[in-house]
Amino acid sequence: MLRTNNCGELNLAHVGNKVTLAGWVQKTRNKGFMIWVDLRDRYGITQIIFDEERTDKETLEMAQNLGREFVIQIEGTVIERESKNPNMPTGAIEILAESFKILNASKTPPFTIENETDGGEELRMQYRYLDIRRNPVRENLIFRSKVSLAIRNYLSSYNFIDVETPYLIKSTPEGARDFVVPSRMNAGEFYALPQSPQTFKQLLMVGGMDQYFQIVKCFRDEDLRADRQPEFTQIDCEMTFVEQEDILARFEGLLIHLLKEIKGVEVSDFPRMTYAEAMQKYGNDKPDIRFGMEFAELTDLAKGKGFPVFDQQELIVGIAVPGAATYTRKQIDALIDWVKRPQIGANGLIWVKCNEDGSFKSSVDKFYSQEDLQAWAASTQASAGDLILVMGGEVNKTRTQLSALRMELAEQLGLRDPEVFAPLWVVDFPLLEWDEESKRFHAMHHPFTAPKPEQMKLLATDPGAVNANAYDLVLNGNEIGGGSIRIHDAAVQETMFDLLGFTKEEAQAQFGFLMEAFQYGAPPHGGIALGLDRLVAILGGQETIRDFIAFPKNNSGRDLMINAPASIAATQLDELNLVLKPTS
Amino acid sequence: MLRTNNCGELNLAHVGNKVTLAGWVQKTRNKGFMIWVDLRDRYGITQIIFDEERTDKETLEMAQNLGREFVIQIEGTVIERESKNPNMPTGAIEILAESFKILNASKTPPFTIENETDGGEELRMQYRYLDIRRNPVRENLIFRSKVSLAIRNYLSSYNFIDVETPYLIKSTPEGARDFVVPSRMNAGEFYALPQSPQTFKQLLMVGGMDQYFQIVKCFRDEDLRADRQPEFTQIDCEMTFVEQEDILARFEGLLIHLLKEIKGVEVSDFPRMTYAEAMQKYGNDKPDIRFGMEFAELTDLAKGKGFPVFDQQELIVGIAVPGAATYTRKQIDALIDWVKRPQIGANGLIWVKCNEDGSFKSSVDKFYSQEDLQAWAASTQASAGDLILVMGGEVNKTRTQLSALRMELAEQLGLRDPEVFAPLWVVDFPLLEWDEESKRFHAMHHPFTAPKPEQMKLLATDPGAVNANAYDLVLNGNEIGGGSIRIHDAAVQETMFDLLGFTKEEAQAQFGFLMEAFQYGAPPHGGIALGLDRLVAILGGQETIRDFIAFPKNNSGRDLMINAPASIAATQLDELNLVLKPTS
Repeated sequence: MLRTNNCGELNLAHVGNKVTLAGWVQKTRNKGFMIWVDLRDRYGITQIIFDEERTDKETLEMAQNLGREFVIQIEGTVIERESKNPNMPTGAIEILAESFKILNASKTPPFTIENETDGGEELRMQYRYLDIRRNPVRENLIFRSKVSLAIRNYLSSYNFIDVETPYLIKSTPEGARDFVVPSRMNAGEFYALPQSPQTFKQLLMVGGMDQYFQIVKCFRDEDLRADRQPEFTQIDCEMTFVEQEDILARFEGLLIHLLKEIKGVEVSDFPRMTYAEAMQKYGNDKPDIRFGMEFAELTDLAKGKGFPVFDQQELIVGIAVPGAATYTRKQIDALIDWVKRPQIGANGLIWVKCNEDGSFKSSVDKFYSQEDLQAWAASTQASAGDLILVMGGEVNKTRTQLSALRMELAEQLGLRDPEVFAPLWVVDFPLLEWDEESKRFHAMHHPFTAPKPEQMKLLATDPGAVNANAYDLVLNGNEIGGGSIRIHDAAVQETMFDLLGFTKEEAQAQFGFLMEAFQYGAPPHGGIALGLDRLVAILGGQETIRDFIAFPKNNSGRDLMINAPASIAATQLDELNLVLKPTS
Repeated sequence: MLRTNNCGELNLAHVGNKVTLAGWVQKTRNKGFMIWVDLRDRYGITQIIFDEERTDKETLEMAQNLGREFVIQIEGTVIERESKNPNMPTGAIEILAESFKILNASKTPPFTIENETDGGEELRMQYRYLDIRRNPVRENLIFRSKVSLAIRNYLSSYNFIDVETPYLIKSTPEGARDFVVPSRMNAGEFYALPQSPQTFKQLLMVGGMDQYFQIVKCFRDEDLRADRQPEFTQIDCEMTFVEQEDILARFEGLLIHLLKEIKGVEVSDFPRMTYAEAMQKYGNDKPDIRFGMEFAELTDLAKGKGFPVFDQQELIVGIAVPGAATYTRKQIDALIDWVKRPQIGANGLIWVKCNEDGSFKSSVDKFYSQEDLQAWAASTQASAGDLILVMGGEVNKTRTQLSALRMELAEQLGLRDPEVFAPLWVVDFPLLEWDEESKRFHAMHHPFTAPKPEQMKLLATDPGAVNANAYDLVLNGNEIGGGSIRIHDAAVQETMFDLLGFTKEEAQAQFGFLMEAFQYGAPPHGGIALGLDRLVAILGGQETIRDFIAFPKNNSGRDLMINAPASIAATQLDELNLVLKPTS
């Protein structure tokens, strides 16, 4: 060991000890006759002192030339500090240096290695190894490691077996786009990287493994929206001989355990909400329930009162913004502009101020009486001092727009406290969703989700009305996991592929192995997958998953540090039997 | 839950309980008036009984038609068995069935789901989900999960942080062949799948993470020798501010912990052997030291005695095979044929029987006196009753051949007891090895391994003589891990790339980011990587890693179950800007 102690552990109990420390120079203060060095490692910072009375001349001179981020090894004695720093675990002591060695010099880093850095996103990604030296980034990675180990130990204690499934699998065009890997040994053929180990975990259940988990990388070749990564990490789980309730109980238990173990937060029974209810009350299947502002449908109240804009709408829906009756015209106009932005796409926003005296002032006073507005207030549960905001239009679109507004207002009002945790289950998802563009059904969850047994007959007559025992785990407005009871019957699976527009041949080519497996005693099973990146970010009180990934990629899927992807040698392409398409 | 209990936990304490079990029909015995069903799940087997006195008629009739591997759910009462089976944890009870439900039927499986199956390798791989139902395969996977969790908890307890490094990285032609992944968003460019996270873990050390581990999939596109997989799992570790000794101590500790925790075997201080010593004594850098038969160099003793075959050899080397003096001419001829096979390629084998009366009988009696042979015996430490086998030829070739013979003999003599564990460290590996074919040096370990500091000067004058602080962890004749102290100085790294034949431009293009990182305060660091597949197999008392991988690939890199790799859609290729090379 090049050190006897780390930079975070020495205190008054060690005074008088001879120690050797190694680390990075965080900063130096040089008064000529005395030099202080803050020495940093993963564990903390320890102050080193050189002075002309107690340090030999040569050492003192060497210390004059120490630059930021130099790596040094110092030997010295722990002494008590004159002016203590109570905010640092090592703040009561310092090390009187006797000798030191420069283990490696450093050029001046391109940005400051401080909690708040002057480096922009791109620069920090290019020098990610320097970014990781900063406390917040390092602590995020350590936090992730802790969460991940706690998950493993929790699931293992409940008899889940960690099974590694393959990364080189087969491309299945259903769902998102696959990353593919050309096979050299099988010319013209390709592996695909898994979008999830879905079929493998189901086959493990067919194989009698009973309870499986894996923390595993998954891959999707999608155009990257903000805060998506082409490779991401999934906590993947599956259980046999279970019903939906068993899965919810176990993974509710996992999240309760993590919140307690990692955050010291006690949460108990999670609320349940059907998909239909979530859409109706929050316009969103991953509602943030840390705050209210639930939707009130005002269609019946607002139609037929002579306001032509509303009269023609399918849905009229409002929320009560707490304490916002004092908003100025300018503030309200800003909200109207906000919903009219192309990203939201609303036509406008009706407002009603609930005055303290019980009267109402609205942008539609011409059409609605005080009694009408009173009824709106009752419906939205608005109190005196609140501001009611109302939108109208096509059902789904309007809900989505008002949901975005609700989140924006919560953000503005500071209602999204990252240290409050409000998990819930959203259940009873539709099995299928109709896609207008391709004029066919898509699987809402995935093609392996089972219809609710009692609705099985509807599959033939009205498939769009069939629900699934599918569920999402939602935390603070984010879907952190989703799962379902799976199909375990070959005939049902065939029907499902048929509904999704697969020909028999396509289904056979892509999933023949699964349908065959179902003929050899496949047990009832179900499971869930949680997004580790997102879960860790939310538990860490942050929203950006990139901050919890050691080496993330940018929005073009590029690793700026190693500069990947990159061109490969012609011989490599040739061995893979591939030719680049001439650029047109 | 579709069950109240699993099939492995009921015993006399539960007699009288009403239970519900679910599982697979292992077998049925039908006496008409009485039917026994062995019901199996991951946890064990429980006997179910239906009889005409106590079971209703309809249920009994249904039970008549149960086939192997049907999945059923049964309700019944735990009763004491008349004839108990002491070899089964549930052998004292059975379940008197009241009702049951077929959860899924099964076609007759293509091979028997028994400890010893009639299914061939290929069939079992095609129906791997059925193979996994067999106890030995399932137990191997559970064992792997246990080992893996024990490793994580051990390393975490010593402050190692589990950091996930990326899978989509950059191709670096040095070393084995990469699997590559075409990038759709960056036309004409490719990612590569990591052969190991080597550079990333070093960058984590540069980033101050101090101690890192990861259990991670790695990929090599090699022509598959027996028992190699294109994707394999590595326990990847790195430490900062350490010397070789610190790393050996920590990972010796890990293996001691695993052997104790998982196998109940106590092992202490591992022997150390230099690479040179291992080659000289065992002809092999991963010697199996569970048994003796150490090499004795007989060159000086055997040359110049008029035996022309030996007189012209560079090395003459022998081993004493314990108790083999009784071998018949036929047995010895078989050994001679064995070493002459093209896989070994030896020209022949000289033998000397050490008779019980102290005399010697050899195949070269014409050239060597009893005193000569006595000296050979002394050198090989042969006792009366042993058989000395001697080979001669070019040093490296002869050592390799005799090493193969030594292992074969140990196998024949039953000296490779899978329940004996003999770990050791092989240290002081050469930094470089000369490749005759390409007329240049290759890195013996990898290009990031540091020369021994005291030999740094030799790099310029005699690079082939330089050793490294590189080490292998060897267990029962298998290298289960290897590592080194790394280069952390940009200039040394440049020299190394230069020695390995990289041009400055190549080094910059491939590893520029690493050499740049070394200029910003890179600390001294080193690490190790262990092969999890191999480690688990050896701890499990077996030699084949495939048996410890849930879904392995065959020697053509093919997954026979899902039939991957496969062709992909023309649109996929097109989006990736690729064209298949016309087959010639």
